[in-house]
Amino acid sequence: MPTPRPSIDAARLLKDLRDLARIGAWKTGVHRPTYSADDMTARHWLAARLTEAGLTPEIDGIGNVIGRTAATGPKLLLGSHLETQPHAGWLDGAMGVLYGLEVVRTLGPSLGQRIEVGAWADEEGHFGNFLGSRSFVRGIDGTEIAGTVNRHNGEKLADALTHAGLADRPRAKLDPARYRGYLEAHIEQGDELDSSGLRLGVVTSIVGIWQYLIRFEGVQNHAGTTRMAIRQDAGLALVRLAGAIDARFPKIAGPRSVWTTGRILLEPGAASIVPGGAEMLFQFRDADPARLAAMQQALQDLVAEANAHPCAVTLTNLSRSTPMLMDAGFQDALERAAERNAPGMHIRMPSGAGHDAQIFAEKLPAAMLFVPSIGGISHHHAENTRDDDLVLGCQVLADAAAEILGG
Amino acid sequence: MPTPRPSIDAARLLKDLRDLARIGAWKTGVHRPTYSADDMTARHWLAARLTEAGLTPEIDGIGNVIGRTAATGPKLLLGSHLETQPHAGWLDGAMGVLYGLEVVRTLGPSLGQRIEVGAWADEEGHFGNFLGSRSFVRGIDGTEIAGTVNRHNGEKLADALTHAGLADRPRAKLDPARYRGYLEAHIEQGDELDSSGLRLGVVTSIVGIWQYLIRFEGVQNHAGTTRMAIRQDAGLALVRLAGAIDARFPKIAGPRSVWTTGRILLEPGAASIVPGGAEMLFQFRDADPARLAAMQQALQDLVAEANAHPCAVTLTNLSRSTPMLMDAGFQDALERAAERNAPGMHIRMPSGAGHDAQIFAEKLPAAMLFVPSIGGISHHHAENTRDDDLVLGCQVLADAAAEILGG
Repeated sequence: MPTPRPSIDAARLLKDLRDLARIGAWKTGVHRPTYSADDMTARHWLAARLTEAGLTPEIDGIGNVIGRTAATGPKLLLGSHLETQPHAGWLDGAMGVLYGLEVVRTLGPSLGQRIEVGAWADEEGHFGNFLGSRSFVRGIDGTEIAGTVNRHNGEKLADALTHAGLADRPRAKLDPARYRGYLEAHIEQGDELDSSGLRLGVVTSIVGIWQYLIRFEGVQNHAGTTRMAIRQDAGLALVRLAGAIDARFPKIAGPRSVWTTGRILLEPGAASIVPGGAEMLFQFRDADPARLAAMQQALQDLVAEANAHPCAVTLTNLSRSTPMLMDAGFQDALERAAERNAPGMHIRMPSGAGHDAQIFAEKLPAAMLFVPSIGGISHHHAENTRDDDLVLGCQVLADAAAEILGG
Repeated sequence: MPTPRPSIDAARLLKDLRDLARIGAWKTGVHRPTYSADDMTARHWLAARLTEAGLTPEIDGIGNVIGRTAATGPKLLLGSHLETQPHAGWLDGAMGVLYGLEVVRTLGPSLGQRIEVGAWADEEGHFGNFLGSRSFVRGIDGTEIAGTVNRHNGEKLADALTHAGLADRPRAKLDPARYRGYLEAHIEQGDELDSSGLRLGVVTSIVGIWQYLIRFEGVQNHAGTTRMAIRQDAGLALVRLAGAIDARFPKIAGPRSVWTTGRILLEPGAASIVPGGAEMLFQFRDADPARLAAMQQALQDLVAEANAHPCAVTLTNLSRSTPMLMDAGFQDALERAAERNAPGMHIRMPSGAGHDAQIFAEKLPAAMLFVPSIGGISHHHAENTRDDDLVLGCQVLADAAAEILGG
């Protein structure tokens, strides 16, 4: 017989989620960019809820909200993020934080208050990449802060921290010895669970994301008087390389590889001018380092084939994140909890999106639990998850946390 | 024996060209946008030169500068334009206007002052398409003026005309019975003359330009969590159609057909978002109406094949100009003058660029003469033509004008 587990308070969880979604509400979703007035209101709202749950909240110098406990013994850290993408959904991030709060309220008394909760600032990257969790796990320095601006409006990070009232606060640092590990629940954002009728995903790994800027240098010229034979059309060179990628990548990709050209820019971008320059942003993702390397090799080969025929092509790597494996024992615990609460309705799957858990995995055993995104929609105000799935996911997280802490 | 012809004053012509190029000088070129202070200075400078040449200048309500004569008998109209593209060259337009002035000075006395000169406003399209020549040849109305803005800075045309001191002036209208025809000299802008060592081009026709907006409607989604199999990537659909055009058009194009994708826009244009919308500006040019129709049919076929696999594609025609044949008799006169002054160094060729002559060709016999563009460069401050070619072209225009007027 499985050990009986304390039940979460479904009504309390759903009320918290809906209360939080009113801060920065936009259409059926939420607009709560990092360090905006609504974002800071949400952080202080969370701090008050953490206090009510018996934790001591801290809002640190980068905006991380951390609910601490004075309990002794190994602890478990649960968290996610509070800010949203612009004009986005109500669950992306917020759900994982409020799961942590609900698990503390549910398990705290029985487990000696050995659960802490964190909301990591700017996971959505308004200013940087994983700013809050990197600050907490690795540390960031003043040079990075001084050099960082809001990618949407150019506001300096230092100014934003000042306006948010955070500039004079210390930045908290992770003590790995304090924790047995880190757990994060999140909406899937894709449609794998929703389209298959499954209700829970146990994340096996978080994919690596490799991003590139590909630039073409041609010769800008008159689109009427320049014969086709002598053109060095940078835009056409881009179209041909993008077509070659489209033809080659399916042959070398794994079953879960994805690749995307998100931006194309032709210069000067006028109807009657042969483009003299062109740029594309290209990225691919996979959980397998060997597959990532193979995709990079294919890209380098295609760029080399395209180069100087007739435009110069340069390939610049912008970022290369390492795929992070989730802790095997934690995966097993999440799977057991999933099977107990929803027999046969769960699956192991990689995460195609980045999450704070990949930063924590550098220093702590870490794992993630996914709940379904209806229609696979996220980063849009229509983002949603069925209430019973929201409740189920929290119960599974509570059960797994209890098992990991030996409860 | 050919009739002896009066010689132009080469030094006077070159001095005028260099004096005019100082108005709005920028690097080795000129920046003289339509109705800018420098542009208006240039128009008044021209008016003074026309007066000195014995003509009565008028600057009309759209900025056209027209040098009139009181002489009786059929007249010949010579012209081009004075404004430049932004930060562009010293000869594009200016050369043809000053050729007209020099031909009046050279032939006026012997031909009874039966030559008039025009500088047509905004051929370069800062505000509209062929604004000045259309106003003169077809007429434009207040509705068009009220609805037109500067494509670079959004300034209303009506405001620009007021600031230029033109708002209260009448707009001149062409009396076709007044003229035997219209002649325009221009730099080639392409490299056909320069690369072949030829010195003069007799224009056979001005190409038709057919322009299209092609729009793709897909589904915007997360670039990490959305599997390749279910994506409706509008940017990828665009790349595939552009690739299909690149494969198909060479098979149906004529020897002088050109086609260009000048602008591509992906929406929202972020590295980690599968584009939900995409647009491209596409145009093609040819002097043969049947070829233009065939290219449009090919484009329609390719769009139909692409449509709904997996993105909706819509094709919108933005403009379709009619190829305009140059007058056969005028071409013969220009060719005879070219052969007399530079035996074997001339060629008949279509114009891949649009020119005011195509508007005049609707109402008058019209023809054009090209001189070489060094390296085919135009719309750039490096635009240039050898002095001896500048002088040769003006002499050929003068000889042809004299023949056409029966001198």
